[in-house]
This record gives sequence, C-alpha cells and structure tokens, in this order.
Amino acid sequence: MSRECVAAPSSRLGDLLSKAYNPNKPHITDTPITKSNWYKHVNWLNVSLIIGMPLSGCIMAFWVPLRWQTALFAVLYYFATGLGITAGHHRLWAHKSYNAGTPLKVFFAFVAGGAVEGSIRWWSRDHRAHHRYTDTDKDPYSVRKGLLYSHIGWMVMKQNPKRIGRVDITDLNDDKVVVWQHRHYLKVVIFAGLIFPTLFAGLWGDMLGGYVYAGILRIFFVQQATFCVNSLAHWLGDQPFDDRNSPRDHVLTALVTLGEGYHNFHHEFPSDYRNAIEWWQYDPTKWFIWTMKKLGLAYDLKQFRSNEIEKGRVQQLQKKLDQKRATLDWGVPLDQLPVIEWDDFVDQCENGRCLVAVAGVVHDVTDFINDHPGGKAMIRSGLGKDATAMFNGGVYNHSNAAHNLLSTMRVGVIRGGMEVEIWKRAQRENKDVQYVKD
Amino acid sequence: MSRECVAAPSSRLGDLLSKAYNPNKPHITDTPITKSNWYKHVNWLNVSLIIGMPLSGCIMAFWVPLRWQTALFAVLYYFATGLGITAGHHRLWAHKSYNAGTPLKVFFAFVAGGAVEGSIRWWSRDHRAHHRYTDTDKDPYSVRKGLLYSHIGWMVMKQNPKRIGRVDITDLNDDKVVVWQHRHYLKVVIFAGLIFPTLFAGLWGDMLGGYVYAGILRIFFVQQATFCVNSLAHWLGDQPFDDRNSPRDHVLTALVTLGEGYHNFHHEFPSDYRNAIEWWQYDPTKWFIWTMKKLGLAYDLKQFRSNEIEKGRVQQLQKKLDQKRATLDWGVPLDQLPVIEWDDFVDQCENGRCLVAVAGVVHDVTDFINDHPGGKAMIRSGLGKDATAMFNGGVYNHSNAAHNLLSTMRVGVIRGGMEVEIWKRAQRENKDVQYVKD
Ligand code: HEM
Ligand code: HEM
Ligand SMILES: [Fe+2]
Ligand SMILES: [Fe+2]
Ligand SMILES: [Fe+2]
Ligand SMILES: [Fe+2]
Repeated sequence: MSRECVAAPSSRLGDLLSKAYNPNKPHITDTPITKSNWYKHVNWLNVSLIIGMPLSGCIMAFWVPLRWQTALFAVLYYFATGLGITAGHHRLWAHKSYNAGTPLKVFFAFVAGGAVEGSIRWWSRDHRAHHRYTDTDKDPYSVRKGLLYSHIGWMVMKQNPKRIGRVDITDLNDDKVVVWQHRHYLKVVIFAGLIFPTLFAGLWGDMLGGYVYAGILRIFFVQQATFCVNSLAHWLGDQPFDDRNSPRDHVLTALVTLGEGYHNFHHEFPSDYRNAIEWWQYDPTKWFIWTMKKLGLAYDLKQFRSNEIEKGRVQQLQKKLDQKRATLDWGVPLDQLPVIEWDDFVDQCENGRCLVAVAGVVHDVTDFINDHPGGKAMIRSGLGKDATAMFNGGVYNHSNAAHNLLSTMRVGVIRGGMEVEIWKRAQRENKDVQYVKD
Repeated sequence: MSRECVAAPSSRLGDLLSKAYNPNKPHITDTPITKSNWYKHVNWLNVSLIIGMPLSGCIMAFWVPLRWQTALFAVLYYFATGLGITAGHHRLWAHKSYNAGTPLKVFFAFVAGGAVEGSIRWWSRDHRAHHRYTDTDKDPYSVRKGLLYSHIGWMVMKQNPKRIGRVDITDLNDDKVVVWQHRHYLKVVIFAGLIFPTLFAGLWGDMLGGYVYAGILRIFFVQQATFCVNSLAHWLGDQPFDDRNSPRDHVLTALVTLGEGYHNFHHEFPSDYRNAIEWWQYDPTKWFIWTMKKLGLAYDLKQFRSNEIEKGRVQQLQKKLDQKRATLDWGVPLDQLPVIEWDDFVDQCENGRCLVAVAGVVHDVTDFINDHPGGKAMIRSGLGKDATAMFNGGVYNHSNAAHNLLSTMRVGVIRGGMEVEIWKRAQRENKDVQYVKD
C-alpha cells in the first residue's frame, strides 16, 4: 500500500473532537485510571456535547412551552439531520455506495453538521476502520467492549488514536465539500445545530422553543438514534449472512435508525446503497437516496446482485444446519461398526437376539419390536433375515423417519455387504466359486 | 403377509355406509358417468347425512329460537363429539398412538357415534389406507383428486371398494368395543347424534332446540371441521418434515380441527400421540389425552424422541437449501475451466487484459475494477500477479461475499496451481529441475 493512500487517525487537517496528537508523548490511555487521574481520561468536550447539552435542554423544557409548529418542525428537522448522517456520512462518504452532485453534498454537509456527531471526515474514517476491523481492538466502537461502550463509552472516554485501525481516506481528502466542512466544522455545528432551528422557529415567533426543541433536544434524539447503529445493531437480532462477527438485523433497530437496522446485511455488503433489500422492510434512507436519483441529484447507486446476496444467505443457513446436525444422534457411523459374518448373524438370531439386516447393516430391534407401528408380527418376520426388500417397499415402503430410526439401531455390518445372499446362492449353485476370509 | 392380517375394504362384518359388495358383479364406478346414470354414481345415504340433514337443520333454525343453555351445551357437545373422532377414531384406534381402558373406549365409541362419520372400524381402515398410500389412487381421500374431492367428494360419490389400499385391521377386529360399535352403528348414531342431545336439552325444557342446535347443526359443524383434516391439512401450510407428499402444517387447520392441523408432522410420525410438539401450538386433542393419562384412563402414550424429529427437520431443510443452491450462480466449476500456463497469464495481462490469479484460479476483473470497494489502485496492484496472499489478509482479509463474487469471475486455472511460483523459483535457482509440458 503506498503511503499517501493511508490516513493516520490524526492527520494534517487536525481533529476537531480530539486535541492535536503528538506521537512522541505517551498518551493518557497508556496510564491506568485511578482516583486521582480519572478526570484526565474523560473526553470533556464530548461529555458536554452528548450528555451536558441534552441535560440542559431537558431542564429548559420545564419552562418553555412546546408549540405545535415547533414540534412539527423539530420532527422534520430530526429526519433531515438524521438523513445527513445515514444517507450522507454513512452511505455516501464512508461507503461510496452511490455518488451525489455538489448540491446534495452541500445539503448533507449542512444537515449532518446539525446532528453534531463529528465532521464527515472524522466520522467516515472511524467508520471505515469499524468495518475493516469489526469487533477487534482496532474497531473504534467495538461491541466486544460492552454495549454501553459501543453506544457512547468510546466518545465519553479518551481514546488512543494509535489504537484505531488505519484506513484509506484519500477520496475524502480530495472531496472539496468534505474538506470545507472539516475545516469549518465548529461554525457549521453551531449554525446548523442551534442557530438555524432557532431562527427558523422565529417565523412563527417561537425562537426560544426552536432553540430548546428543534435545537438542543432534537440533537439529543438524533445522536442517541444514530449511536444505536453502533450498539443495538451489533447486539440485537438475526445474522442471516454471517455470524462470525457481531452485526445483526432487527426491525426495531431499523425503526430507530432510519433504516440502518439491517446491519448484518450491511456489514456483508457495505457498498450496497440499501440496508434493507425487501420492499416491505423499513429503510427510509434507501427511499431518500432513490428519490434523489429520480430528481437527478444522486447517481451510480450501487447494488449487489441478488445472486451474490442469496449465496451468502445459503452459506449461513448451511452453517447453522451443520451445527444442528452435529448435535443429533445419526447412529454409529458405518466404519466404526464391527464386521459380522452372515452365519454369525443368523446364529445369534436363532439364539434369541432380535437382529434384522437391512442394506448390509445389522440392527438390534429388541427394544423396538413392541413399539413397531406396523405391528410385532411384521417386524418379527424380518428377524435373522435380509429385510432390505421388505423394509424398502417389498412389504411396506417405510418413511424417512423410519429410515432415521433404523440407523440408530445399528450394531454391525455384514462382511461383503448385502451381496452375501447372492454369494451364497452362487456358492450353492456352483461349488467352485470361493470367497476369501481374512 | 399372512392372510388373516389383512382386511379387505368390505369384510365379513359388512359396511354400514356402503351396500354389501359382490366382487363378481361389475361395480358402478366401472361405468362412466352419463346424463342417464349419474344418480347411480351418487352415494345417496351419505348425501343425506352430510348435506341433506344439515340443510334441514338450517331451515328449522329459522323457527326454533336458540336459548343460551342450549347454545352452551351444543358447543360443549361439539367438543366432546369432535374429540371422539380426533382422540378416539384417529389417535387411539387408527394409529394406536396410546392405549385406553374400557371406560374411555366406551365414551369414545359413544361420542364419536354422535359425530356421524362412520364406525370406528370403517373410519380407521380408510385412514390407515390413507397413511399407507397417501396421495396415490389407493388413498381413499387423495387430495390429488382435488380439494373438494378430499373434503366430501369421496363420500358423496360412490367408490369402488377394490380401489382402496388394503391394510391390517386385526387389532380392531379383536377390540370388543370396536366390534360392538360397528355392529350397532345405526343405533349408536341415532342415539348419540340426535336423541341424547334432544333429551339432555329437555333438562331446561328445550327439547326442540336441543334437536336442532345440539343435534343436527352441531353434527354439521363437527363433520365439516374434521373433514378439513383430509382437505385443508393436505393443501394449506408448510412442510417442515417431508415435502414429497401433500400433508402440511398450518395453525388455521389446527384451530378448526382440535389440533390435527400439524399434519406434515403427523404423517411423518403417525404413531406419536401428539400432532403439535411445541407447548404453544394448539393441540387440545393432545391436552385431552394427556389429562386422561393423569386420570389413569389412558396409558402408554407414544412419543418419538426429539432426536428423531429434529433429524427429519434437518433433512428437509437441507433439501430446501440444496434446491436453492442449485438456482444460484457459483461460478464456472473448476474442472470446466481451461488450463492456462503461468507465462501466458502474465503475457495476457501485459497486453492489457485485467486478470488476477488467486489460489491457482485466474479471474477476469475487467468489469469490477471501477466498482471495487477497496479502490481501483488496490485491485490494480494485483493484476498479472499471484494475489492469493493479498486477497486473503496480506492487504485485506476479504469477506465471504468478496470470495463469492471472486468465484463468478473465474476464467481459467493455472497449470500446477499456485505452486507455480515455487516451481519457478526452484527453476531459477536450480536449472536442473524440469516440469513436464503435455
Ligand atoms: C427393522 C426395523 C424397522 C423399523 C425401524 C420400522 C419402523 C416403522 C415405522 C416408524 C413405521 C410407521 C410408518 C412409517 O413411519 O413409515 C412402520 C410401519 C410399518 N412397518 Fe416397519 N419398521 C421396521 C421393520 C419392519 C419390517 C421388517 C416390516 C415387514 C416385514 C415392517 C412393516 C411395516 C408395515 C407394514 C408398516 C405399516 C403400518 C401401517 O401404517 O399400516 N417394518 N415401521
Ligand atoms: C480480485 C478480485 C477482488 C474482489 C472480487 C474484491 C472484492 C472486494 C470487496 C467486495 C470488498 C468490500 C469489503 C468486503 O466485502 O470484504 C473489497 C474491499 C477491499 N479490497 Fe478487494 N477485491 C478484489 C481484489 C483486491 C485486491 C487484489 C486487493 C489488494 C491488493 C484488494 C484490497 C481491498 C481492500 C483494502 C478493501 C477494503 C476497503 C475498505 O473497506 O477500506 N482487493 N474487495
Ligand atoms: Fe457496524
Ligand atoms: Fe457501515
Ligand atoms: Fe392425512
Ligand atoms: Fe392420521
């Protein structure tokens, strides 16, 4: 890999949400947390953005009445800023699952700023590392470190930038909108996150309500919802495509995250612009991207062929089935059975053992005679004989279940398999034919 | 099979619902239905019992008011007579899935008579033939002849008794309750079906209501409900154990038939006293039998081990999966690919073909270079080379989906597989080593 392809977590553009990083000084995460230094481990900027601000919003809400126009606008702006993250940060920039013209990019850069979850550049870099190193120590929000860690812990506590896996972000450094947003991130956040909703609600004379509800509390809800992609989506639901890692599919996560809840699919097919592939699944981010395409604002929507998707599903089902199969008793494998001479088999039956030979295998049916659904007489008529034909349609064409049951009764294999009867007849008819006993 | 084990469909005890059968005279079913003889093809006795009687009940219902005591009693008697068929005829006598003492047998013989669906002996013989010859011409109510036929057609139209498969009913002929009920069947039907409910409703002075609602109309509902086992249960639902024949599992059928709706299971494990194996599935017949056991009235409840049941399920899932797998494109099988010399492979790449060798197989990635989620540069770096290590973790540990995708791009195999590189190095180092070109 050539050097310029790779961005270290902290790059020349600097990181807004973490202090400039000097690789020569030991990082705070290298020292254990103690009573006296714990506050140095906390990322106080993030704490104030993720916990402090919403708290202040909750308190203000006691005094600021909620007007219906403001409520409606807050919900709409919630969706817009949420889509900034899911359709913008995530599916456009982190995964390049489609392409967008500058107007849509600028829109995303603005509304995604209003969601207050870090710049496109910072977010996408971490997210690419998350995909590339899922569940490992290089995964910035590995769920293996606990559900709470993957939800907000990784932001609340300072992280050693060296730990996060390295990924290629040359494409992002070449994207003017990304670079511009990263450079002016604080201004974008304050304007799109707080000033814009405040001013907008002023249209119906409710600037304070706009600030509290469409600003602060809306930020809180968008943040918590999208954080669920890192926590809930790696913890709750099914794994139809791959169960080696943590990502899971669940409709509840999808409902909370604007459609990002089909996360097992997404980790397996990250460059697909869809997260939900069925029309009846909830994926408004997909619907939005699709609409943008119809409007000419997005293009090159990438999609894995359904053949590839179904192959993944078949392989995972096969794996599950093999695991299930291994827990069941399929009878002693043929190669672990003792070899019995045909005459010994007949002798043992004459001495009272209840043995039946079917397809070259000797079965002990002692415990089954009374339970035989076809009656005692029927099964008795096969004792000490080659019952292959009787069992397979000669008398009754036994079900698959009967064949399975039979295999659990195996006690030996006849030397020479079921050809033994033919050998014997041949012997009787032509005394010259010999077979070797070893 | 010894002769006395087998009962011909019409036996010495005679058949109540079909005229005494003379095997020497041609049967009516041997002549085609015409305008002039169609009425001879109809089984008028059955028509009057299954269609005529209920119709008369519906008409009477216009004049006879329904009192709540009678309604309650009709419902309870509906369940009792229904259980006579499901727990008695079906699971006790036809399948011997458990054993019952004389008191319970007498109770069943009585209430099952009140359901008016033929004697235990006649019903069980047909039902055993239905299981043994499911979906064939020997199946008395094969759904292959149409849903309506399997529901009532087989009773409405006369049947050639020779057609129905022969089965062993020696056990039924040895059962005193069965023989007694068969001999006195008409009396039992009239008493249990009509007289008893009429008299019972007399307790609250509503004999007429008892006759119409708890008698005639209740008979109609019980008949239609249990007929669904032959029609609906072979037509609607899933096939988790075996899809070669028609039986199916569906909760709707179970709700209608007192739990007989898990019919795919039942045909695979007919001697299991349960039809539903999960506690949350609706199988009141099973619950009734279980309660009878607790009361000491039933014993020897037979149950397939869950190991046997799960094996059937695994095999059916495997079959489905194999069918699905066969519809997908897994790439050209290796043995159908042309063999390419390593030097030819390198030459072709130098002449502009976009080929990558991974694990001894040559892949044409021309159409994929621009779509590669890892970027154009990455995949280009593997062109004309052995990219096995790069692809499998050297640069990036590709997902299962990436491996699948790769296999669809196969165009050839390298002679000597991936050992070719090692051969070449050996050659360079030691000019004596030779490999054969054919
Ligand atoms: C050797 C081990 C045997 C096993 C494990 C076995 C198992 C079974 C099972 C599970 C059934 C129920 C229907 C089904 O699932 O197919 C059945 C039915 C039957 N079996 Fe067997 N069977 C054995 C041997 C035999 C033999 C040797 C005969 C005949 C010579 C025989 C004759 C029948 C008949 C006639 C039925 C049908 C009963 C009916 O539905 O009328 N079975 N057997
Ligand atoms: C030869 C055919 C190739 C195919 C079909 C292929 C396919 C893919 C696919 C589907 C992905 C998305 C992630 C995943 O599903 O694992 C991916 C990612 C990647 N591929 Fe390839 N690849 C090929 C060759 C290569 C080669 C030769 C290299 C390197 C020399 C390479 C390097 C990468 C890297 C680094 C990523 C990670 C992108 C990221 O998430 O940052 N690929 N590839
Ligand atoms: Fe994830
Ligand atoms: Fe992602
Ligand atoms: Fe059936
Ligand atoms: Fe049955």
